[in-house]
Amino acid sequence: MKIIFEKISVIGLGLIGTSILHALKNKVEKKITTYAYDINPQHRSIVRDMNIATIVSEDIEHAVKNADLIILSIPVGSMKKVAGQISKHLKKGAIVTDTGSTKLSVINDIKPFIPKKNYFIPSHPLAGTEYSGPKSGFGSLFENRYWLIVSNYESEETKKLDSFFSGLGSIVEIVNVQYHDRILAITSHLPHLIAFTIVGTASDFEVDLKNDVIKFSASGFRDFTRLASSDPIMWRDIFLNNADAVLEMLQRFNEDLSDLQKAIRKKDGKKLHSFFSRTRNIRKKIIEAGQS
Amino acid sequence: MKIIFEKISVIGLGLIGTSILHALKNKVEKKITTYAYDINPQHRSIVRDMNIATIVSEDIEHAVKNADLIILSIPVGSMKKVAGQISKHLKKGAIVTDTGSTKLSVINDIKPFIPKKNYFIPSHPLAGTEYSGPKSGFGSLFENRYWLIVSNYESEETKKLDSFFSGLGSIVEIVNVQYHDRILAITSHLPHLIAFTIVGTASDFEVDLKNDVIKFSASGFRDFTRLASSDPIMWRDIFLNNADAVLEMLQRFNEDLSDLQKAIRKKDGKKLHSFFSRTRNIRKKIIEAGQS
Repeated sequence: MKIIFEKISVIGLGLIGTSILHALKNKVEKKITTYAYDINPQHRSIVRDMNIATIVSEDIEHAVKNADLIILSIPVGSMKKVAGQISKHLKKGAIVTDTGSTKLSVINDIKPFIPKKNYFIPSHPLAGTEYSGPKSGFGSLFENRYWLIVSNYESEETKKLDSFFSGLGSIVEIVNVQYHDRILAITSHLPHLIAFTIVGTASDFEVDLKNDVIKFSASGFRDFTRLASSDPIMWRDIFLNNADAVLEMLQRFNEDLSDLQKAIRKKDGKKLHSFFSRTRNIRKKIIEAGQS
Repeated sequence: MKIIFEKISVIGLGLIGTSILHALKNKVEKKITTYAYDINPQHRSIVRDMNIATIVSEDIEHAVKNADLIILSIPVGSMKKVAGQISKHLKKGAIVTDTGSTKLSVINDIKPFIPKKNYFIPSHPLAGTEYSGPKSGFGSLFENRYWLIVSNYESEETKKLDSFFSGLGSIVEIVNVQYHDRILAITSHLPHLIAFTIVGTASDFEVDLKNDVIKFSASGFRDFTRLASSDPIMWRDIFLNNADAVLEMLQRFNEDLSDLQKAIRKKDGKKLHSFFSRTRNIRKKIIEAGQS
C-alpha cells in the first residue's frame, strides 16, 4: 500500500473506525501513525488493549491536531458537535472525511465548522455488519465493497482520498449528495426500517406465540432479525437525518404493498405471479455485479 | 438410519423433493426403493441423469401404487389436483404427507381424496433456499432444521413419520394447523411479501437509479433480493392459500410501520430509539436457540 497520509486520526471507535485501524495496521503498520479517539473511555481502553492504533488519545484535540486525514466514524447525529470540537485544532491542509450513512445532513452539520485552510470531503463505505462497538471491527471489512466519495467534482484531495480508500480494498466512486441519499434510502435505510418494524410486530405477540416465532424463525424472519439487531443509536440518527428520502421511498413502498395486499384479498393469482416474477431479475443482476 | 418405510414416493422434483432423494440416497441407498415423479418431463429427465432415485416414473400412478409413504413436495396450489390423481392408486395402509408451507388449505384440498384405508398427515420442513428446480436440492438441507407435523394427536403413523424426518436430520415437532399457519405467516410469508414488494418498488425506478441501486445494493436490500428471487409460483400459491393469516399479520405490521413513519416525520428520536432497542433482544434469543 502506497502511503497517502502519514498521520491519520480516527474519531469514533465502533465497527467502521476499528475496521479502518485493523486494515491500516495489517497493511502499513510501521510507516504511518494512527491516532484513535472515542468519547467513551471504555472504547478507548479496548482499542488500547487490542493495540491497533499507534496512539489512543485521551482527548479529541490531541487526536486531531497532527493528522493529515481525520476520519469521523461516529453516528450522524453526533457530527455537528464533533465538528465544533475539532474545528480549531486542524493542521493546515488537513482533510476531514466522515463515514456516515446520510450525506446532506452531515454536510450541513460539518461544513460550517471547517476552516478555509482545510478540506471537508464526505464519504461513505457501503460495508458493515449487524454488530457494533470496538470489538466488532476487522481488517477485511472494506474489501471489494464500494466506498462512495460525495462531491460534485474531482480535485487533488478527492484523488488522494480515492487512493487511500482503494488501499483499504474498496472500489471508489464519486456521487452527488442527493443521489447518494436516495440510493441509500432504498438500498439500506428502508430495508432496515422494515426489518425493525416486522421484528417489533412479532415482539408484541402474546408470550407463547412470540416464543414459537423465535423457535421456528424461518428464513425470511431470521434475516430480518439480523438487520433489526443493528445499533439503535446509529439508526435513530439515520432516520432523523435522511427523513425526506426515506419518507419518499416509504410512500412508494406502501403503494406497492397496498396493491399486493389487495391482490391477496381478491385472490388475484395472476397479479401476484407477475409481480413476483419480475423481482427475480434484479437478484440476477446483483449476483452478476459481484455484490451478492 | 433405521428403515421406517421401504418404498417411498416423491411427487414433485423441486428443491424439497430432490433434497429428500439426495438425503435418502446418502443414508440408506440400497435398502429402500424410491419412486420419483414430476409433471414436467424435463425435471424427470434431470433427476434420472442425477441418479438420485431408484425409479423415475413416467406416470403418477406408477410412482405411488407400491409406496408405503407418498411425499407431495409440490406448490400448495397443485395439491388438490394431485390428490385427485393419486387417490385410487394408494396401497392399503400407505401414508400420504406433503411439505407445503400452508396447512389449512392443504388439508382442505387433500383430505377429501384420501381413502379410509390410508392416512394423510400434513407436514412442513422449515428449510429451503432461494433456489428452485431439480438441480437445487442437496442432502443436508434438513439437518438441524425443524420439520413440523401438523396433527392434533400422536398416533402410530405420526410416530413413524417423526422417525423418518428425524432420520433426514430434522428436529420434529407436532403443532396444530391454525397455529402453524399463523407462525408461518409472520416468520416466512410476510417477510417474503415485503421483500418482493421492496425489490419491486426499486425495479420501477427510472433506469439510471435502478442500475445504481443494483450496483450499490447495500446489506439490507441485498438480503431482500435473495428472498425476492424465490419461486414465483410457489409464493403465489402460498399467499392465495394462507390469505387470512397473512392479511392479519400484514395489518399489524402496517400499524407499526405507520407509527414509525410518523415518528420519522415528527423527528421523534426517543420513540425511534426505544423501538429499535427492543428488537435486538429477539435476535439474541434466535442465536441462543441455534437457528441463526
